[in-house]
Order: sequence, then structure tokens, then C-alpha cells
Amino acid sequence: MAASPTPPDPNFEDTVRRMFAEQNFMVFLGVRLTDVGPGRAEQRLAFRPEFAQQHDFFHGGLVGTLADNSMGCAAATMKPAGKQILTAEFKVNLIRPANGEELIGRAEVVRAGARLCVCRADVLVVRQGAEIACAVAQGSFMYFD
Amino acid sequence: MAASPTPPDPNFEDTVRRMFAEQNFMVFLGVRLTDVGPGRAEQRLAFRPEFAQQHDFFHGGLVGTLADNSMGCAAATMKPAGKQILTAEFKVNLIRPANGEELIGRAEVVRAGARLCVCRADVLVVRQGAEIACAVAQGSFMYFD
Amino acid sequence: MAASPTPPDPNFEDTVRRMFAEQNFMVFLGVRLTDVGPGRAEQRLAFRPEFAQQHDFFHGGLVGTLADNSMGCAAATMKPAGKQILTAEFKVNLIRPANGEELIGRAEVVRAGARLCVCRADVLVVRQGAEIACAVAQGSFMYFD
Amino acid sequence: MAASPTPPDPNFEDTVRRMFAEQNFMVFLGVRLTDVGPGRAEQRLAFRPEFAQQHDFFHGGLVGTLADNSMGCAAATMKPAGKQILTAEFKVNLIRPANGEELIGRAEVVRAGARLCVCRADVLVVRQGAEIACAVAQGSFMYFD
Repeated sequence: MAASPTPPDPNFEDTVRRMFAEQNFMVFLGVRLTDVGPGRAEQRLAFRPEFAQQHDFFHGGLVGTLADNSMGCAAATMKPAGKQILTAEFKVNLIRPANGEELIGRAEVVRAGARLCVCRADVLVVRQGAEIACAVAQGSFMYFD
Repeated sequence: MAASPTPPDPNFEDTVRRMFAEQNFMVFLGVRLTDVGPGRAEQRLAFRPEFAQQHDFFHGGLVGTLADNSMGCAAATMKPAGKQILTAEFKVNLIRPANGEELIGRAEVVRAGARLCVCRADVLVVRQGAEIACAVAQGSFMYFD
Repeated sequence: MAASPTPPDPNFEDTVRRMFAEQNFMVFLGVRLTDVGPGRAEQRLAFRPEFAQQHDFFHGGLVGTLADNSMGCAAATMKPAGKQILTAEFKVNLIRPANGEELIGRAEVVRAGARLCVCRADVLVVRQGAEIACAVAQGSFMYFD
Repeated sequence: MAASPTPPDPNFEDTVRRMFAEQNFMVFLGVRLTDVGPGRAEQRLAFRPEFAQQHDFFHGGLVGTLADNSMGCAAATMKPAGKQILTAEFKVNLIRPANGEELIGRAEVVRAGARLCVCRADVLVVRQGAEIACAVAQGSFMYFD
């Protein structure tokens, strides 16, 4: 969406990377935070057989997890310094099977208010080197003391 | 909600339990399918440190996963025999920290059409023996050949 | 849902009825606020030909409007005195045609926090005297100074 | 989003414009369908005092209506000839007050399958000649016989 917003916290990248590293579940799954910028974030997860649903594609739970978490990191780049952040709500529409070698969550801030930040995300799958969109998401995140 | 709907497939419970058992990611996490009935399903997941977010609560990705998957199982109980099912979309509002020993997804069918099934779910956490609601969800699931 | 919550403002009913009456669009359409209680609200709208979509049912825009507005009124019953309220987001699943003489939005608070209130709603249509569910909704509302 | 999709019905524009014209509620409000193209649609509504909420901005019900209806028209451009279409579900996040002279719903198809079409929309308000985003939406629409 147009121009990059200006993060209120100049150390936003450190903050977001540290916040991400403290989430055990992300470490356990092997999710990598592959891009952090003003109002945007990207995460990637390589396929493993234990991540599959019944057709050997990435499970929908992981598609939702990357949608939510990449939006949360994008929202965190616009967080006032010293505030905390949590997911208020999110919604995901699955548009194609998540059939590929790697899952990508790519999120951007639509609007960062003082207390609520709205984001959008695309979830894509890398199949034989090409990126294929498999889900679109929208959500909101709360800043609090 | 009210009265239980009548599943078109009399073997719906076997079908749903088999479909659930074929999802590697559910086995990997240790999610249990603890109730299956006409138009309803319940899943449970015991806490482990690797499931935590930064505050040692269940990670939001798992809250979303149980919301989606318990609704998918509830929708599958109303699936015509021989059809397949997939998540079309879902939405989750987080209402309290998922801070407890066990996470529960409890879903019911709101309306099962010929091709689309709409469900609602509550996600709860068991804390010192009491159930505390931590999320509410709504989603739709597609039946296809 | 279960037990009724306790509104922080003892004059909540007056507040909600006054807030509703100040919304020109509700007056213009002829929406009536037919019930207000602790954590709940109901609205009704009689059918008129100008409210129809192409099949002479209530237009989806009105189904969404009653979902959003009945949830907003339910959320307003739990609003701290002196605060204002606005819709943060809502989601509607349409489950049956809104084909009938009257449209009903019936909403309840799921969780009222200090700043965000999550609600659910059913939208029903009255057809030959019987209530038929035509949509389910979930949304969140913000309290602010 | 990228490249425009190819509508399966070469007369898609006539079909969409006729479908829109048959919706009494759109005529009653004065909504205009200001753009129809492959996988996209735009609608506009001029402000009138009877469209206001309590602060004299466009009522949220109208913001939701334009989000839903512009997405429905975008989805209809990708509808197979002879099929019908209805809203399955939609979700709206309000990001700024809809305070202005005109309301715009601008929608595009994200993915048109054989039976379900997923769209995104921006709702904007024109204030002193400038467009200001006031909501983002995501929804799905069903094609049926």
C-alpha cells in the first residue's frame, strides 16, 4: 500500500527480531523471520512430512499460523517503544492447496493507530522455484502497556 | 444450534476419526479428537514448553489451529458420504490469554448446505481444573468431489 | 454466554437507546431497537420493496448492517460510563436467503475488556411467523475517550 | 493481484451492470457502479444527512454494504455465463472515520475458482477532493446454478 510508514521506535527491527526469537513455538517449528522493514515482515518455513495434512500439503493450521505471525511482526514494527502487542483477531481465506517446498507469510501494515494496528498478509507456497499464492489474510493487533 | 442435525453419512464418526488420524501435523503436535457427534467435535492438546509464545502461554498459532481443525471435524460429520472437505475460510477473535495446562477446541455446525458448511467454535484453556474461554471462531468449509 | 454480565454503567439502557436514536441511518431505514439488556441487544426491520436485492429478499447490506449494529448496541451496554464506542471489525457468514417479512439482529457480548469488546450475533428473518436464521456474525468494538 | 484475469463470460460487463440495476436497495440508496473490468469493480455513494451515524460520518452499515457489494460485482465479472452468485461471507476492518462527501468501494478478485471466488476491497472516503482509506475488507462469493 503506497509509501512505507515511519516506525515510532527507531530500534524496531531489533525489537521485532527479539520478540520473534522468544516465541518457543516458532523455534520448535523452524519458522524463520526472513524480512523485517517499516510496516512489513516476511516469514518462511521449509516443508517437513510432519507438517502435512491428509494430502501431504502444508496443514491449514500452519497457513493460519504464518498469516497471523507475519502480520503480528509487521504490526510490531509500528509499535510505540515500550508497548507490548497481541493479536486481537485475524481471518484467513484459503485459495489454493499449500503444496510445495516452502511456506511464506508476507504481511504489511494497512493502518497503525495508537492502540490498534490493521494488517493484510498473503501466504504463498514455493513450488519448483515459483511462488504460488495459497491464502489471503486480514487481522488486527493491539498495542498495550 | 439447538437440536442436533442428522448426518447424511451414518458412518460419519469413523470417517471423521480416520480423516483426523491421517493429518500428520495433528499427530506431530499430539492433538486428540476427544468428541465427535452429529454436527459437533472437540479436540484437546496438552501444554508443552515448545508450544509457548513469549509469555509461556499457548501460542496463537495453536489457538487458531484448534479453532480451524475442530470446526473442520464438526463440518466433516455433516459431509455427504464420498465427498471430501477443505477449509474455505475462518476467523478467530482472541479474548483471553491461553494460559493453562490444556487447550480445547469445541466446534458445532451452524448450517450444513450441499456444498458449504458454516461452523462456530469456542477455544478454551483448562487452568487449575477450570475451563476458561480464550477465543471464539467462525468459519466455512467446502464439500467437493 | 451463560450468565449475564454486569454493566459498569448503571444507566446503560438509556445510554444505548440515546446512542441508537442519534444514528440518522437507523432512523432513515426504520430499524427499531427492540431489546436492550446486560450484554445483549436486539434490532428489527420490517421488509419494504426498496430493501430488496435481485430476488426480492432483504439485501445483504442490510443483513450486515443489522449484524454490526446489534453487536454495537450489545457492546455499548458494557461500555464504561463516559467512554465512546466504535466498530473495530466484523465478519458475517450468510447461511440462508433473507426471505421474509422482518429482519432481526440479535447480539450478545462474548467478552468485554477495558478497551475491546467481542460480540456474536445471529441474524434471523421472520417468515410466516417463524424465525429462520439467515446469518451469523462475530465482531469487536472499541471503547475510547 | 498483478495481471487482470480473463472473464469466462465475454459479456461480463452487461451481466454485472444488469445484476446491479436489479438490486432495489442499491437504487434506493443511490449507489452508482462507476467501474467494471475483468476481476474488478468500483461503486460510489454521495453523502446525504440520512446516511450518517451519530458523528455525521457515513454509517458503518454503508461502509460494510459498499465493501460487500463492490466485491460481489468484482466476483460477478469472473462468473461463468448462466451461473448465479451470492455472498458467502465477508469481513471488514474499519481503519478511519468515513467522514467525507463521497464513499467509494473498490474491489478486486484475488482468486476465482469454479465455485468460490475470493475478493479484497478497500473502502475510501473523498474529503475535500482527496481519497482517504477508511476500511479494508475480504470476502468470498459462491457461483451456483
